[in-house]
Amino acid sequence: MQKDILKSTLVIITILMFSCQNNENKESSNNLEDYAKFVDPMIGTAKMGHTYPGATVPFGSVQLSPDTDTIPYAVNGRYNPDVYKYCAGYQYEDSTIVGFSHTHFSGTGHSDLGDFLIMPTTGDLKLNPGTQANPDSGYRSRFSHKNEQASPGYYSVLLDDYNIKAEMTATTRVGMHQYTFNKNEKTHIILDLMSGIYNYDDKNVWTFVRVENDTLVTGYRQTNGWARTRRVYFAMSFNKPIINYGRARYDKQPYNGFWGRFNQSENFPEIAGEKIRMYFDFDLKKEEKLQIKFALSPVSSKGALANMKKETPNWNFEEVHKNAKLAWNKELNKIQIKSDDTEEKTNFYTAMYHAFLGPTEYMDTDNNYTGLDMNTHQAENFTNYTSFSLWDTYRALHPLFNILQPERNSDMIASMIAHQEQSVHAMLPIWSHYANENWCMIGYHSVSVIADAIVKGNTNFNTDKALDACVQTARTRYFDGIRYYMDMGYVPEDKNGASVSKTLEYAYDDWAIAQAAKKLGKEAIYNEFIERSKNYKNVFDAKSGFMRPKLSDGSFKENFDPLNTHGQGFIEGNSWNYSLYVPHDPTGMIKLMGGNERFTTYLDSLFTMELPDKYFEHTEDISREGIIGNYVHGNEPSHHVAYLYNWTNTPWKSQDKIRMILDEKYKTGADGLSGNDDFGQMSAWYIFSSLGFYPVAPGSVDYALGSPSISNAVINLDNGNTFQITAKNQSAKNVYVEKVELNGKVLKRPFITHDVLMSGGNLIFYMSEKPNLKLYK
Amino acid sequence: MQKDILKSTLVIITILMFSCQNNENKESSNNLEDYAKFVDPMIGTAKMGHTYPGATVPFGSVQLSPDTDTIPYAVNGRYNPDVYKYCAGYQYEDSTIVGFSHTHFSGTGHSDLGDFLIMPTTGDLKLNPGTQANPDSGYRSRFSHKNEQASPGYYSVLLDDYNIKAEMTATTRVGMHQYTFNKNEKTHIILDLMSGIYNYDDKNVWTFVRVENDTLVTGYRQTNGWARTRRVYFAMSFNKPIINYGRARYDKQPYNGFWGRFNQSENFPEIAGEKIRMYFDFDLKKEEKLQIKFALSPVSSKGALANMKKETPNWNFEEVHKNAKLAWNKELNKIQIKSDDTEEKTNFYTAMYHAFLGPTEYMDTDNNYTGLDMNTHQAENFTNYTSFSLWDTYRALHPLFNILQPERNSDMIASMIAHQEQSVHAMLPIWSHYANENWCMIGYHSVSVIADAIVKGNTNFNTDKALDACVQTARTRYFDGIRYYMDMGYVPEDKNGASVSKTLEYAYDDWAIAQAAKKLGKEAIYNEFIERSKNYKNVFDAKSGFMRPKLSDGSFKENFDPLNTHGQGFIEGNSWNYSLYVPHDPTGMIKLMGGNERFTTYLDSLFTMELPDKYFEHTEDISREGIIGNYVHGNEPSHHVAYLYNWTNTPWKSQDKIRMILDEKYKTGADGLSGNDDFGQMSAWYIFSSLGFYPVAPGSVDYALGSPSISNAVINLDNGNTFQITAKNQSAKNVYVEKVELNGKVLKRPFITHDVLMSGGNLIFYMSEKPNLKLYK
Repeated sequence: MQKDILKSTLVIITILMFSCQNNENKESSNNLEDYAKFVDPMIGTAKMGHTYPGATVPFGSVQLSPDTDTIPYAVNGRYNPDVYKYCAGYQYEDSTIVGFSHTHFSGTGHSDLGDFLIMPTTGDLKLNPGTQANPDSGYRSRFSHKNEQASPGYYSVLLDDYNIKAEMTATTRVGMHQYTFNKNEKTHIILDLMSGIYNYDDKNVWTFVRVENDTLVTGYRQTNGWARTRRVYFAMSFNKPIINYGRARYDKQPYNGFWGRFNQSENFPEIAGEKIRMYFDFDLKKEEKLQIKFALSPVSSKGALANMKKETPNWNFEEVHKNAKLAWNKELNKIQIKSDDTEEKTNFYTAMYHAFLGPTEYMDTDNNYTGLDMNTHQAENFTNYTSFSLWDTYRALHPLFNILQPERNSDMIASMIAHQEQSVHAMLPIWSHYANENWCMIGYHSVSVIADAIVKGNTNFNTDKALDACVQTARTRYFDGIRYYMDMGYVPEDKNGASVSKTLEYAYDDWAIAQAAKKLGKEAIYNEFIERSKNYKNVFDAKSGFMRPKLSDGSFKENFDPLNTHGQGFIEGNSWNYSLYVPHDPTGMIKLMGGNERFTTYLDSLFTMELPDKYFEHTEDISREGIIGNYVHGNEPSHHVAYLYNWTNTPWKSQDKIRMILDEKYKTGADGLSGNDDFGQMSAWYIFSSLGFYPVAPGSVDYALGSPSISNAVINLDNGNTFQITAKNQSAKNVYVEKVELNGKVLKRPFITHDVLMSGGNLIFYMSEKPNLKLYK
Repeated sequence: MQKDILKSTLVIITILMFSCQNNENKESSNNLEDYAKFVDPMIGTAKMGHTYPGATVPFGSVQLSPDTDTIPYAVNGRYNPDVYKYCAGYQYEDSTIVGFSHTHFSGTGHSDLGDFLIMPTTGDLKLNPGTQANPDSGYRSRFSHKNEQASPGYYSVLLDDYNIKAEMTATTRVGMHQYTFNKNEKTHIILDLMSGIYNYDDKNVWTFVRVENDTLVTGYRQTNGWARTRRVYFAMSFNKPIINYGRARYDKQPYNGFWGRFNQSENFPEIAGEKIRMYFDFDLKKEEKLQIKFALSPVSSKGALANMKKETPNWNFEEVHKNAKLAWNKELNKIQIKSDDTEEKTNFYTAMYHAFLGPTEYMDTDNNYTGLDMNTHQAENFTNYTSFSLWDTYRALHPLFNILQPERNSDMIASMIAHQEQSVHAMLPIWSHYANENWCMIGYHSVSVIADAIVKGNTNFNTDKALDACVQTARTRYFDGIRYYMDMGYVPEDKNGASVSKTLEYAYDDWAIAQAAKKLGKEAIYNEFIERSKNYKNVFDAKSGFMRPKLSDGSFKENFDPLNTHGQGFIEGNSWNYSLYVPHDPTGMIKLMGGNERFTTYLDSLFTMELPDKYFEHTEDISREGIIGNYVHGNEPSHHVAYLYNWTNTPWKSQDKIRMILDEKYKTGADGLSGNDDFGQMSAWYIFSSLGFYPVAPGSVDYALGSPSISNAVINLDNGNTFQITAKNQSAKNVYVEKVELNGKVLKRPFITHDVLMSGGNLIFYMSEKPNLKLYK
């Protein structure tokens, strides 16, 4: 009893403290909590998180961020494995910064972008970036993390070699730089138009630049990389006049013709070629600030200039920064958690931040954008998005958007439908960015995103078109083994590699299409695809107890090793993990795998067995940091796995696994992420799981319950409702759920549904140190 | 007397015959004479005429024409002089055709284009063009001229190797092909996206193609050639379904990534890369006709498709051909000549045809076009044109347009003003094509074209903007020695080569600006530029009697050879010819050169002296065929020279020279032209001179009179007036003018003015075997 009083007192004190803190945190004008201050953009910048620390706004087109190296994709024609570290341009361990470029993917496992690298320098002009080993050989500069600051919408660093303070902020389409020069030396801005991320020798296809006047430069760059035909247009404006400028070319110039009449190297305003670096000189006094507005457009330099004028009409760095921070706080306030654990808040709000970095807006302020057909299109009644890392993000990120970003998610689907209409394959995106399909990874998971939205009623898009697009995509016979899958019920390994992964993922995707069809009353489509969704059974080998590659003659592959990630019919995973990939029918899968008990043992083994390095050491997306036993959290295929105990009679085993993963795989610090953040998917897993639920099968309205790590959270829904989650008796030890109450009623199954959540309400977990073996019964 | 009766009878018979012929010639529906049948597009296709024989409409964007070879611009990094023969893709002496491409310059002395080469083949697929020496090594075919037909808007040839009859016609933006296959073999259409004119190794920057469905292909090609950043978009439609297709790539593919998942070589609808050839297979019966519509756009493939739908809604080759022919006859009827000399009619109407081949329309049917800034612009209230070969065409072609094509000429100027507004240099075009300035040749002769139109009152464009653009251009200090010219009154040879040619041409251009300023009442501009126009005097060396290169210290160049074309301060001409380049002030020039008598002797010598080959043998634009004595007619700088006697007291010496040039330098037959036709300038000289007058100084309203070779011509002016020219007592011997009557009054000076011409009227030359020494006195 006394104990209870003590506890109550503590609660009151905590609430009072929290209120105080709130007042302190409020963004005065908007009544928002300042959660931005808990966001640490450095998380994930070390090792393989592949996040970037630079300045951007939520879903912004511009990601203005430092690149610490720009090593080539290949050396002497051979892939350079070190390039993988630089998917986002920045590696925490590095000691030099090459410059600040305007486009970055967050957390991807392959890459592109890094457009328009800007570097301020002083003294003798160097146009070569130099090397980390010998920074003085080029324009790059040493820096140290102690002089670095990163927060939502803002990044700054001191460039030691030049004693220049570099600051950056952004709007959706404009990156704003501010450089404070602390020397009385000649000052240069380098614009390196050859620099890029995943930079092949011949990646630069064409560069076109015009120095329009002494403060304005426009142009575009076309690259042939992950995206084959990618053009990014820009307009760059300075707040001080250029006093001198020039360019160097590093390409062959097959024809120079009548251009020989000019000295094109200096102060010649028309610049074009494959490989170009430029410099702009300024006459600045010590401590004077040089500002640059750098606007992007997918359409034209005219579009970029219009974007600049609309989004940054003034030379007010602080205002742009303030607005960027405000934009972030608006998004971050969609979930308000209460915690006196700063690390928890940091992890949570950084996850929220990472989850809202993409897909990114991809259109001008006049709604024009470039489509897959390279024609200019106008987005009618939607915002066009790009950079769909769908093999990752269909799992939890888009389901999270259906809760927190319903309007954007609908627009993303409208963008996918537009993509499908423009696609010469008439296919929905697989992995698309910047008006290009890069075909990365497997499946056709757009259909999952679409089905999830349809089933959940978040459909501010043409649902008939959407379903047609799904069906059309799933019937594209020439795509990645689909002809075999359609004809034989599985992808035969001798016809098409990674055949089991493909069969399993197609089967899930087909189930998703069936769910959408059912919701829309399209019976024939439902029947076709619900039938296809059972195809997962065709690759199950009862003898070995694993999903196993099957050949076109119907026999299973010999010499099968379910532990090995390589050459076993799977992609970025082994059979041990991938055999569990039947998110749409765990019950059927459990039956197939020998029933409840055998299945539970299988899961237990997965989390506890030893997986030697050799089984995954050349799989870039899997690293030791992301592994627990043989369970791979650092990559996506198993993200639903910890929740599968819910389908057995041991849901408490999900609870401790989830808490273990939350605890071990998400940490603060630059090396806090255990694998690629994958454009927010890893973060979305964290957000869902830390709140106590997870969308095991997008396309279903059910969320599986786990074990929340957060004690108190309020989800502020766009529809005005709030959904409150409380974990009573929460502690690091109390990872088991004793009881769950939804709106005051005890839950008898380990699920809540989407409509319950969106209606607002109260979910209370009662936590305990010990598992409740009778929970949900 | 009897003789006279005989003559009268002959005249009557001739008139009767002519009337008969007229009826036969009439295009039934339009009351037009069928002058198209006199046009021989083969004229100029041999040697250095650089014309093309293919199908096009007047000023059409598409020039669909056979390319007989596509040899590289450079071999082992060194310029291949043979490439010069192929400026228009076709050489009459060749025995093979590589294929039919869609864009060609007419008569230029440097080149580009040759986009989208199509070749029909049968049998085994060959994707390599092969060589002339060994045609069987590739897809090219042998042909012979006896199976070839070329007429305005139509070209056909039998491709011997495949027994395919190839026919082509065109609208403004669409080339239409018709292939009749005479074998029962597998049939292919090759689309060679690497082929081009003046093809450097790395000219192809990017190619993007989509096979949209089984009859439609779209895409674009970007090249880096004479135009540095040139993209041409296309849409290609077949009248039969493609049954199979594929592509081969000849470029390095730095990154193939996830594309490895597909067989991209066959039936894969998305094609992109630097160097690509494609094939399309069809299932055709013997004698079946395969038709292709190939539409171009400067903006987008969407634009190309819209152009196709608008201009060729049906699959009716004959109708397109009929319309093309009609369009030509409408233009050709602007001057109706009467002659029973078929050769004369052939020369005259072929000259008219060549004069109306360019500049070419450069915008979509929705008036959108790509500007110099690579942005999409809309032509508001004008038709946008491109391909301005101004160093050539300012002389006589644009003046001819002010008479025959006033609306188009005004629109061409509107296009030049738009160019100037888009130019990062804020300069009017020098030699511009396809949204690029190629800077070919010297001067800033746009100002001449503009001034000529302003002075002649043909100003359906903003004259204030136009004059500002002229002034801005002429003051561009960093352009080609202008800073010296402005500061020192001449271009010093030690600072900038071809300095005399530049000084002389700038001086003329400046005079033209002054004339425009005067007409518009801008006194300050007039004063500035009339002063500059006297600069020609600064490079006259009284000692040698020649225009001579001056150095920056004010001394004349030593070791001066006025005969040599090379390294003497001139471009494409020697001092003997170029010293006469003061078209705006012949009187001042004559005075400078020692007065009437010495000047007349100078001119006489020019036409009679011997010029050894060594003085011009490496000057591509000058060949023996174009020379009379030391007078070079085959290139432009002397085009006004034969008329200069008009400023002496021996105008009759102009008359016989002009008739000699008309007779010797313009012939029928493929080798009929004595030099590059230069986008119609050579032809315009012929048209003017054969009618008896010539615009010595565009920007003046005066036309100098010569000696007409045509006996009877009617100019049908757009304003409804007609101007009739009659040469009485005309014959090959009667080259001298006895008397000239304008509207019944004897002319006392060897000039008529533009307004007189445009008012309609009657100009009668009385011809004689002997010079009238008292003419015009």
